[in-house]
Amino acid sequence: MKVYLDNAATTPLRDEVISSMFNVMKNYGNPSSTHSYGRSAKILVEDSRKIIAENLNVKPNEIIFNSGGTESDNSILKSSVNDLGIQTIITSKIEHHAILNVVDYLSSKKVKIKYVNVKSDGSIDLEDLESILSNDNSKKLVTLMHVNNEIGKILDLKKVSSICRKYSTYFHTDAVQSVGHFKFDLDSLNIDFLSASAHKFHGPKGIGFSFIRKKSGLKSFINGGSQERGLRGGTEAVHNIVGMSKAISVAYENLNHELKHILNLKLYLIKHLKINFPDVIFNGISDDLRSSSHTILNVGFPSFKNNRELFNFNLDLKGIACSKGSACQSGSNQGSHVLNEINSDLNKKVPSIRFSFSHFNKIEEIDYLVEVLKSFSKTPISL
Amino acid sequence: MKVYLDNAATTPLRDEVISSMFNVMKNYGNPSSTHSYGRSAKILVEDSRKIIAENLNVKPNEIIFNSGGTESDNSILKSSVNDLGIQTIITSKIEHHAILNVVDYLSSKKVKIKYVNVKSDGSIDLEDLESILSNDNSKKLVTLMHVNNEIGKILDLKKVSSICRKYSTYFHTDAVQSVGHFKFDLDSLNIDFLSASAHKFHGPKGIGFSFIRKKSGLKSFINGGSQERGLRGGTEAVHNIVGMSKAISVAYENLNHELKHILNLKLYLIKHLKINFPDVIFNGISDDLRSSSHTILNVGFPSFKNNRELFNFNLDLKGIACSKGSACQSGSNQGSHVLNEINSDLNKKVPSIRFSFSHFNKIEEIDYLVEVLKSFSKTPISL
Repeated sequence: MKVYLDNAATTPLRDEVISSMFNVMKNYGNPSSTHSYGRSAKILVEDSRKIIAENLNVKPNEIIFNSGGTESDNSILKSSVNDLGIQTIITSKIEHHAILNVVDYLSSKKVKIKYVNVKSDGSIDLEDLESILSNDNSKKLVTLMHVNNEIGKILDLKKVSSICRKYSTYFHTDAVQSVGHFKFDLDSLNIDFLSASAHKFHGPKGIGFSFIRKKSGLKSFINGGSQERGLRGGTEAVHNIVGMSKAISVAYENLNHELKHILNLKLYLIKHLKINFPDVIFNGISDDLRSSSHTILNVGFPSFKNNRELFNFNLDLKGIACSKGSACQSGSNQGSHVLNEINSDLNKKVPSIRFSFSHFNKIEEIDYLVEVLKSFSKTPISL
Repeated sequence: MKVYLDNAATTPLRDEVISSMFNVMKNYGNPSSTHSYGRSAKILVEDSRKIIAENLNVKPNEIIFNSGGTESDNSILKSSVNDLGIQTIITSKIEHHAILNVVDYLSSKKVKIKYVNVKSDGSIDLEDLESILSNDNSKKLVTLMHVNNEIGKILDLKKVSSICRKYSTYFHTDAVQSVGHFKFDLDSLNIDFLSASAHKFHGPKGIGFSFIRKKSGLKSFINGGSQERGLRGGTEAVHNIVGMSKAISVAYENLNHELKHILNLKLYLIKHLKINFPDVIFNGISDDLRSSSHTILNVGFPSFKNNRELFNFNLDLKGIACSKGSACQSGSNQGSHVLNEINSDLNKKVPSIRFSFSHFNKIEEIDYLVEVLKSFSKTPISL
């Protein structure tokens, strides 16, 4: 049996998405060309923009297409320094490396970087955030992710954006793990910038978008042609853009029942883990359904502490795909920077695994996972 | 009849490319994941890299995937300033805006920009280039495109790279119009960096690559995960990468006979334009087959000088897709910056059109084009 439980790394494309892309691949104009081929491509791009904008309740011209979450994060952080004169960036140590490595880079360019405290439950310490903002008179930007990609912890966007507004601070959120999985009404929030990536919500890889609030003053990070109203040069990836808009519209049409299904899978796994592994740990309290996304469960298994590497490897051998942490760091042996930050002692002792779900997963797959885990605990894991 | 003669703007996908992408879209792992899904995606990415490297005679680890020519140009120019300490960039005024707008940006960051002279035939003045390089002791990079996207003029890469080597200058070439259309043996040339874009050689939009010579010292322009050996963060667009490698391998397998076919189309059009429009002008001597790419013909029609706007529009009405200049500037009324540079008086007086061909075009389409042009000259163009 093959079981894919690594949906936080990337998601399978929906059939509707593949069909929509396939149709567009035969329709090949360059959206910047003024002739009929170009105009028909342009319409596909602009219709996609409208669909995405409607689903997030923003204006179409606030959606800028790009190559994905990492480019989006890079462009927003670097351009905010370049174009808005941001002097200080406030973030946390549990962000994705698309943020952490950008702020490291910016730090070498004399931008001040401040890290807000993270509580042991994996949540951002909002009192500390407020204290940092109130004691800093420089031009500031806060960047904090909406749903943490390793432990699923949900940030209260309303609270954080209010705090940022109170201290006249720009607010960017990396919403790569939440767009398509949570409802958004961006118009009602004081968010200035947001990053999203299609392949995290059953759309194609290599395409994403930034939400950039109108009149933000941000300029192009990739200079070239006048695509995206001068905010991002380069011929638009029409098939990918259409696939992304199809993915987002189908996701939001089916949000309620798919969310319910995924939540059931997560609850079912939690229940059966607790029964079979009484010492199981849920990192970042990822079993708390109020503060953790339905899509992610990060589990520590003290039972396997003497076999941590083999444990991971053997799940793969049994056809189960899951992850130690973010895919981008999968090859690394340094362990999860997120778990290190929230509980480094625990992380060193207990092998942890991130299971991440989609509506394509089935209860039988969870049963199989639990059976495999049980078999590991009965017989010593070996090659 | 619909006739697409704007292949310099973008090209139709080959059926083989669409099939290869379609197969991969069902295979959805993240190449950075270490489990079986991830490994199978990683193999697709690395096999594609090998195919591209073999076709250009470089090492696989010198090919860096990105979102296309514009990102490639941006990353190489900006990172060369950032990481290699480049103080002066030498380029020309007939480059694509993916270069011109980047050097404008870098100029605002105190990078010195020097423009090499362009001769009236649209060729780069190599004596002037040598004179600039010999008189400048700063750390320098030359960026000149291989095939000009408007007039098809071919740069002698061997000569330019030798000149650059002589004066210890880095050399980048935007080869967006030539990769897949011309043979490359990069190992034999002193080129440090090259940019290419799949949708210009019948591959998908939104994907391209940089050739970055090993140990160049260039670092990441988009920071994030450790994809592309740390040189470009972001989950790889596996389907697009596979489509690009399929496009490049099919292009080079069929290069000889497709090139011959395209050359015949160009010769045929030149001949029939000369017969029917004796005052026709070939901008940048684009009818000279030794110095101009088989793929592009840039034509001035003095006969239509009183109807320049309608002329363009009416071709579109007759189903013929061609362009005034680069697609990225199609909407602009400022005319072609390339034609302005090589012959501004002419450009103002004579309406010019770029016809650009692919192996999909047929002789009958050229016949139709000539008939339509003839009909315009017989009856005044009107709506």
